[in-house]
Amino acid sequence: MAKVKKQPRPKAEPPKGFRDYFGADVAERKAMLDRIAEVYHRHGFDPLESSAVETLEALGKYLPDVDRPNAGVFAWQEEEDGGWVALRYDLTAPLARVYAQHRNDLPTPYRRYAMGPVWRNEKPGPGRFRQFYQCDADTVGAASVAADAEICAMLSEALEAVGIPRGDYVIRVNNRKVLNGVMEVAGVLDPADPSKFEEERGIVLRAIDKLDRLGPDGVRALLGEGRKDESGDFTRGAGLSEAQADVVMGFMDARREDGPATVARLRELVAGSAMGAEGVDELEEIAALLDAQGYGPDRIVIDPSVVRGLGYYTGPVYEAELTFEILDEKGRPRQFGSVAGGGRYDDLVKRFTGQAVPATGVSIGVDRLLAALRAKGRGQADSMGPVLVTVMDRDRMADYQAMAAELRAAGIRAEVYLGNPKNFGNQLKYADRRGSPLAIIEGSDEKARGVVTVKDLVLGAKLAAEITSNEEWKAQPAQEDVPRGDLLAHVRARLGRDG
Amino acid sequence: MAKVKKQPRPKAEPPKGFRDYFGADVAERKAMLDRIAEVYHRHGFDPLESSAVETLEALGKYLPDVDRPNAGVFAWQEEEDGGWVALRYDLTAPLARVYAQHRNDLPTPYRRYAMGPVWRNEKPGPGRFRQFYQCDADTVGAASVAADAEICAMLSEALEAVGIPRGDYVIRVNNRKVLNGVMEVAGVLDPADPSKFEEERGIVLRAIDKLDRLGPDGVRALLGEGRKDESGDFTRGAGLSEAQADVVMGFMDARREDGPATVARLRELVAGSAMGAEGVDELEEIAALLDAQGYGPDRIVIDPSVVRGLGYYTGPVYEAELTFEILDEKGRPRQFGSVAGGGRYDDLVKRFTGQAVPATGVSIGVDRLLAALRAKGRGQADSMGPVLVTVMDRDRMADYQAMAAELRAAGIRAEVYLGNPKNFGNQLKYADRRGSPLAIIEGSDEKARGVVTVKDLVLGAKLAAEITSNEEWKAQPAQEDVPRGDLLAHVRARLGRDG
Repeated sequence: MAKVKKQPRPKAEPPKGFRDYFGADVAERKAMLDRIAEVYHRHGFDPLESSAVETLEALGKYLPDVDRPNAGVFAWQEEEDGGWVALRYDLTAPLARVYAQHRNDLPTPYRRYAMGPVWRNEKPGPGRFRQFYQCDADTVGAASVAADAEICAMLSEALEAVGIPRGDYVIRVNNRKVLNGVMEVAGVLDPADPSKFEEERGIVLRAIDKLDRLGPDGVRALLGEGRKDESGDFTRGAGLSEAQADVVMGFMDARREDGPATVARLRELVAGSAMGAEGVDELEEIAALLDAQGYGPDRIVIDPSVVRGLGYYTGPVYEAELTFEILDEKGRPRQFGSVAGGGRYDDLVKRFTGQAVPATGVSIGVDRLLAALRAKGRGQADSMGPVLVTVMDRDRMADYQAMAAELRAAGIRAEVYLGNPKNFGNQLKYADRRGSPLAIIEGSDEKARGVVTVKDLVLGAKLAAEITSNEEWKAQPAQEDVPRGDLLAHVRARLGRDG
Repeated sequence: MAKVKKQPRPKAEPPKGFRDYFGADVAERKAMLDRIAEVYHRHGFDPLESSAVETLEALGKYLPDVDRPNAGVFAWQEEEDGGWVALRYDLTAPLARVYAQHRNDLPTPYRRYAMGPVWRNEKPGPGRFRQFYQCDADTVGAASVAADAEICAMLSEALEAVGIPRGDYVIRVNNRKVLNGVMEVAGVLDPADPSKFEEERGIVLRAIDKLDRLGPDGVRALLGEGRKDESGDFTRGAGLSEAQADVVMGFMDARREDGPATVARLRELVAGSAMGAEGVDELEEIAALLDAQGYGPDRIVIDPSVVRGLGYYTGPVYEAELTFEILDEKGRPRQFGSVAGGGRYDDLVKRFTGQAVPATGVSIGVDRLLAALRAKGRGQADSMGPVLVTVMDRDRMADYQAMAAELRAAGIRAEVYLGNPKNFGNQLKYADRRGSPLAIIEGSDEKARGVVTVKDLVLGAKLAAEITSNEEWKAQPAQEDVPRGDLLAHVRARLGRDG
């Protein structure tokens, strides 16, 4: 006999940091994305689904906190020509490539939305996955900050459309030009040669972005020589002097009681910087546009502490934060925090074309927003299991299938049990696991009498739990024989009562 | 001054064989998948979205026509542990991994559907991409061929739900066991040691699967010594004798005028093979189940020429073919062909668990089915562009945004022009490119009179094209001044008329 080749069994698990989504999770996410898409569509945005794989050079290196080349992305070499390709790490870099490629065929401005998975080659951790969904809306080709204001307003509409009520979220708006102006005033940035202190500027940006997590002292340390964390790891700082750091800290703290007061305070801080003044003007214009449309400070506010970590923003930046409290792992209340962010990135398309193309847009963290909806009990999927037609007589599968087909034709979710039908208890256990509201039973006895038995599993479970009186049991029987011809009407009535 | 680093501009294109989907294409696919999902859901199937990245060992090597190890998949090594991971090439191999991993938490049988992109590292060609959508439905854990019959019936429902009418498609069903039986009778397969002629068996399978493309002579050559194609490339054959090849060719030709006659013919062909008899019994049972539910030969037929190319099928196989004609690249009529296929694969889960787990399922070729719907003029996306609020006065953006917001609040797709408003002609050109039905105009003159001008772009284009009489023009003006307060009512009425 031939030698039997024996291979070791493969492990039944996905690679580290990847996961699967089942049933209600998939349905809930889809319901949420459908609602967001509806808002985007109504605002004139068109869907775009770009390739998941891009050339590495087209993607560029825009991930925050990345020192090694190509770190953070999943990349490999093409067999044929040795070129490097990679999975997209966000939906913005691909948009820049798509717009540069198709700009002659696309309307200007081009408003588009995109939803789909992105991949990050990062160290996985609890709740931190290497594949996750993003949901973006961007306007390419519009220089006016009216485009930024529109994105902020639309983000507000989208959050309310999925079930985050007004008062439970706030959208904070800032402007990178104001921060750059502040850094000019402090001498961290040279207006004659902005590339000079590029590295320091990046460190300042990322330090401010971590205010929530590190607190003012931590940020202050990162503005200066650097910071040692609890584990003893040292992060190099921007090397600012005390006086320079004071100016930057003052910027983060510039929010006042209302928009006009904050704007006035920012004007003081950037006095002498042309770029800073431009940034404050833009903030003022965005605020005026939003106020006029009724997006008051209960929904959208100017907040200088928002800077966003990504390197490519050039003007307005914005962030949506959920303000209600949830309990953290240790049971302590904390604010839910950021679920979306974005801003203006006028130079991304220029990489391809050499010509500046203004662009602005927002990205919603889909998994975080879903988690927020669940935390508020607002997951919206229809989780009802199918009506189960049980199998009493193996030779009568066609009859059982006909029953299920009859229910389905009336729009009722229904299925025939397809496991081994020998043990009837297993069929009911299966119905339980599926969340079936009803089980239909037609054995030879029922068949002979021209009836089917309808077992109400929801009511049955309720009655069993509540131990009601005999009268109630009789008034609301959890199981009933009905003429075969009345099956559909009876099932409809039962589902109406339970639903 | 610091040295200016200059990098070459990246090319604005996706890697070879990848593409992007815009606007209506995305919307049409989504509409189609939503309808299919609705059918699957109603049949009791639950959605599953598994990770796009799998370990290479979990994926296994099941692509057809693949000789080199790992050919056909995009794979790379993990940085941390050097393990090989890859993009999924279909949705079946991941399902086997998911079921093996979570089998204790999943119902048995587990009915699931999945929709999403898969990736193949193949040579791209015209209309042949390396990323494409699949849409699968599978039942895992059901040994009964009632599960296969259910999948076939559901596939029929799904095709009709998306707009393929009865008569324009046929689902062909066959059984690998019958083919194996035929090969036993011909002496190509040794029932005592089925692994013995594994390679020859694979060649026979793939040869039969190419009947459409190669014709009987081409298949016959592949059953024998081999075949030289037009380019002179030689494909090695299975090495069957004349008599053996006759038996196999007779199998492909075994379809008779109706199901019972075909079954009778198949019984003759497999006489003496236990496995062949089992296969014919299963086919007969499937046909009986489907007939009893009204899925007659106008929708589902037994056809021995269907074998499917994939190696992992173990029992019933099925394929949906669209029977209407389209014109090929050269303008010749040809049948549209296959849009979905599947079958029973009882050994895929066993790879992980060591225990046999029966499974059966179908995969719809999403892009091909969409192409078919378009060929029949049944693309179903709402392609109406947004109502465009034009910008006559830059300082009044907030007013224009308020108009758009008013329309959107009433469910009407609307946007404000966000390009440079200087040239009004550009705004109308933009509206045209967007497919806008209406443009709203409010300059200082209109503002002073308390009106807005509504320009009906659809009607305008129609009138311009038809050159109608003056009376008609007056009766149906393409442009009208309406009081600002009547804007919404007027837009509603216009859209009702045009829609």
